[in-house]
Amino acid sequence: MRGRTHYCGEISESLIGEKVELKGWAQTRRDLGQVIFIDLRDRSGIVQIVANPEFSKEAFEIADRVRSEYVLSVTGTVVKRDEETYNEKIPTGTVEIRVDELTILNPSKPLPFQVDGETDVSEDVRLKYRYLDLRRPEMRETFKLRHRVTKLIRDYLDEKDFLDMETPMLTKSTPEGARDYLVPSRVHHGEFYALPQSPQLFKQLLMVSGFERYYQIVRCFRDEDLRADRQPEFTQVDIETSFMHKEDFLSMMEEMMKKIMKEVHGLDIETPFPRLTYEEAMNRYGSDKPDTRFGMELVELSDIVKDSDFKVFADAVKKGGIVKGLNVKGTADKMSRKEIDDLADFVAVYGAKGLAWLKVEEDSLKGPIAKFFTEEETARLREALQAEAGDLLFFGADKKDVVFSALGALRLKFGKELGLIDEEAFNFLWVTEFPLMEYDEEEGRYTAMHHPFTSPIREDIDKLDNNPEEVRAEAYDLVLNGYELGGGSQRIYERELQEKMFKALGFSEEEARSQFGFLLDAFEYGTPPHGGIALGLDRFIMILAGRSNLRDTILFPKTASASDPLTGAPGKVSEKQLDELNLEIVSFEEEDEE
Amino acid sequence: MRGRTHYCGEISESLIGEKVELKGWAQTRRDLGQVIFIDLRDRSGIVQIVANPEFSKEAFEIADRVRSEYVLSVTGTVVKRDEETYNEKIPTGTVEIRVDELTILNPSKPLPFQVDGETDVSEDVRLKYRYLDLRRPEMRETFKLRHRVTKLIRDYLDEKDFLDMETPMLTKSTPEGARDYLVPSRVHHGEFYALPQSPQLFKQLLMVSGFERYYQIVRCFRDEDLRADRQPEFTQVDIETSFMHKEDFLSMMEEMMKKIMKEVHGLDIETPFPRLTYEEAMNRYGSDKPDTRFGMELVELSDIVKDSDFKVFADAVKKGGIVKGLNVKGTADKMSRKEIDDLADFVAVYGAKGLAWLKVEEDSLKGPIAKFFTEEETARLREALQAEAGDLLFFGADKKDVVFSALGALRLKFGKELGLIDEEAFNFLWVTEFPLMEYDEEEGRYTAMHHPFTSPIREDIDKLDNNPEEVRAEAYDLVLNGYELGGGSQRIYERELQEKMFKALGFSEEEARSQFGFLLDAFEYGTPPHGGIALGLDRFIMILAGRSNLRDTILFPKTASASDPLTGAPGKVSEKQLDELNLEIVSFEEEDEE
Repeated sequence: MRGRTHYCGEISESLIGEKVELKGWAQTRRDLGQVIFIDLRDRSGIVQIVANPEFSKEAFEIADRVRSEYVLSVTGTVVKRDEETYNEKIPTGTVEIRVDELTILNPSKPLPFQVDGETDVSEDVRLKYRYLDLRRPEMRETFKLRHRVTKLIRDYLDEKDFLDMETPMLTKSTPEGARDYLVPSRVHHGEFYALPQSPQLFKQLLMVSGFERYYQIVRCFRDEDLRADRQPEFTQVDIETSFMHKEDFLSMMEEMMKKIMKEVHGLDIETPFPRLTYEEAMNRYGSDKPDTRFGMELVELSDIVKDSDFKVFADAVKKGGIVKGLNVKGTADKMSRKEIDDLADFVAVYGAKGLAWLKVEEDSLKGPIAKFFTEEETARLREALQAEAGDLLFFGADKKDVVFSALGALRLKFGKELGLIDEEAFNFLWVTEFPLMEYDEEEGRYTAMHHPFTSPIREDIDKLDNNPEEVRAEAYDLVLNGYELGGGSQRIYERELQEKMFKALGFSEEEARSQFGFLLDAFEYGTPPHGGIALGLDRFIMILAGRSNLRDTILFPKTASASDPLTGAPGKVSEKQLDELNLEIVSFEEEDEE
Repeated sequence: MRGRTHYCGEISESLIGEKVELKGWAQTRRDLGQVIFIDLRDRSGIVQIVANPEFSKEAFEIADRVRSEYVLSVTGTVVKRDEETYNEKIPTGTVEIRVDELTILNPSKPLPFQVDGETDVSEDVRLKYRYLDLRRPEMRETFKLRHRVTKLIRDYLDEKDFLDMETPMLTKSTPEGARDYLVPSRVHHGEFYALPQSPQLFKQLLMVSGFERYYQIVRCFRDEDLRADRQPEFTQVDIETSFMHKEDFLSMMEEMMKKIMKEVHGLDIETPFPRLTYEEAMNRYGSDKPDTRFGMELVELSDIVKDSDFKVFADAVKKGGIVKGLNVKGTADKMSRKEIDDLADFVAVYGAKGLAWLKVEEDSLKGPIAKFFTEEETARLREALQAEAGDLLFFGADKKDVVFSALGALRLKFGKELGLIDEEAFNFLWVTEFPLMEYDEEEGRYTAMHHPFTSPIREDIDKLDNNPEEVRAEAYDLVLNGYELGGGSQRIYERELQEKMFKALGFSEEEARSQFGFLLDAFEYGTPPHGGIALGLDRFIMILAGRSNLRDTILFPKTASASDPLTGAPGKVSEKQLDELNLEIVSFEEEDEE
């Protein structure tokens, strides 16, 4: 035999008596003196091999030298195990390989950590030895899943006539959106390329070209400070279509998701997906990406408390803010006063100045603020919050945004901690009718909530000049289990409307022209109505694989400081490299002087 | 009806009498007074639509306003054309659409150039209006082909258990190979990422991880001066396998190519592909990527002329060089003396100091150097070159390298100009047994011919210390019609051998350690034997599509100065951006001072 005849995981009783050749790693080795057992592992699974001097003295002697993670080539015969030695933990557990020939292809030093299951070494160590970390079965399965999902998406889109098209990585820096990663040009003195934050403009240009259905699974880049669910480079399923009715497009995306869920988890998910407008999502869940796997919705109380003696509530409403409540069912007796007080710190992160609460008893509300409410107010609060004895009520009273984010976060915290979330559920939903733009206090201007190419809902266009904050976007976010899986929209395809949009965003005519002139020009040469979506693949895989860390879905991720402990990237470069780029590094001293 | 019911190209006689809704561009419009014909184009093709006030006065009036490249929505009935008006140029030529409703979705200004076929506007204009250039049918078909080939590769590799895996784009700069594109880090003062020239190290690490079969269709980057067949960013089909016998791997790649050729061109190409060693390829074709679609091989003549009176030949051999000849059949009378003399300039580019030639007559050789050869030498030359009356013979005499490249180029030139090349043929072949390294005069050290991770042929390892230039690599280049389609090799997988290799390449221990320490470390933890290949996708598509310009296979390519006339990339960036990166641009003045 010249090469592997089977994968380890393929060995089964149907092969009993057959001679096989296997390749793989020695996961474990047990030496019983007259016989040596080795669990041989490859990509597919594990099978037990048995070296016994009675079968082959030579192989036995080699087996004696094998240690964990040695790379082996094994030739032998598949035999049935004695029933009392069946290993129910592995699918090949009723058979084993009687070894004739054994070759050590490469030895291994002892590993810095175990690779046969979940590990508790620090993530830094895992990333430094990523090539070992990736041997762990959880990791292997995640990347097999990632391959499969990617293939399903490609197959689905191919079937629907989408063309897989590659857009450039060396593009131009634009001031909109997040911070660009820059790439200095060697040929053009003092000029830079930018790595794409998304292929948005290129995919729109492809619609102008008439390709009609484009997709790409593409790397995108953002030079922002990192959080647990962000990476400097991430992968996006980027889709754009021309001439397609929005409803047909959403159905298509739903069908794609349905197919993936069926193939990957054997689940029949219901379509069409539920839809919430942005306003409804914020009002009910305090979030534009609500986790609907549990209830505990936010309840509107402004009207009930606006004239109450509790100044905090009444004032909030008077100043144009709102008061909302959250009923945490049956926890009044389970939380200590200290635990409740600590929650004020939790919501402070979201800008809330305090957290009012009440415990529900059979016929009264108890707590520091209970005394401020009249009997009628108390009754109306109970009713609105559907309060029953034993419930614990929390209140937010502030500007809308603060109440939404504070109570939205509190809701999620309780959902997780009280085990209210059905971990088996996959709740997809669309959030629609986003505001087209929001006012950025810091920059003193409006910024696009999605991006400047999102179309306003046609009937709102008139408000663009005078009431831009009231204009709704023809946008749709796909939400899964509280994560934003992707954002899509119909695009502006008329020059005039696009110019209006730039103006509303505070661009001077010249700025719009110099940054996006080529797009404005393109709109004048027969641009079809078009729209599309971008799905975050890393996050989708994370949810599908049941992981909680985005880095577990990326083969070689970066740390929170955007570095790679394995290769040491980023690193110093030579003077020659800098000279060729006409660049100088500003020294720390110079920085200090500034 | 809410949306498109058919693509234009789908309309056929089987739909006669049916009501359809189409979307697309007005390719042409002919106004016959009482009736207006519009050729409506979408991604799939063209169909004629007819507006006639008898069917719909409103639609007719709108049709009257339509101009070239207007975007239209059309509702109407499929009818058969009068036989005398059949248009044989388009597949839908026997039918047309009688229009009921016509909507102009977006108008268009007159285009800067025509998009209904090949164009002769300059490439700069084409690139500036790339979105229009891509409307041309040749371009559309090329990118449809690209999609299809990509899909075929993915499907094939998926079927063979390969996992599609994504490696990082923000990696570490290494001094080996071509010049890196650098990406300054904002977080790490004065440090840089590098964009990958290939995912070589990462794919090898994935083999250490035990994924066994990896592939990726991946963007790679090289900051080199550009030629017609190079781009700063290019796409590579990157494949790596563990435990696979080289022969099995090559068969697999051949099967993949066979499948693509069958699906794309309906061709049955023969496998296994022919193989040439590097030495044989150079000797016979003067190239390591020979175009074997025609003969005209180089003929070894050193032995015949080494003692001749023609000093140039005799000296070349004495100095360790060679003399080779090329027989250009039947062209002796077709080339003027001037044309022949001009060829000396052509080969001068390849370092040849002159180009000797002879015309073959019935019983003699004619030309300035004929007199130097004895009768016997003349007879042996004729025989070796299989010279017949009317042939034209060219000679190269110099160092091996110069003779190979000069005559190799001359051979190609004649092959093209004399129409010797079968343009329908697709000649795949493997070139094997490359030298592992070559001496770089400029750097004064050996450099890897492929890359430093290529395994030497095992039996040559002993020569690594003392005769490195004699060591052959376990490498295989895939060549198609004179283009290098890809390069592959078995890799080094033992730390000791890899260290030996670095040493032979002139790395100090510390350099090897600091640049590639993580790979050397990885080799100690159970690394399987592995190997793989990288195929140039852009070039492959170029050959398959019968194009001669690599830029025609890339949607948004860069010009020869690595810029994009469409977006204006690269461009200036703001002071704020530079400050954040701790960078300063060296001014032109400072440069001058140096």
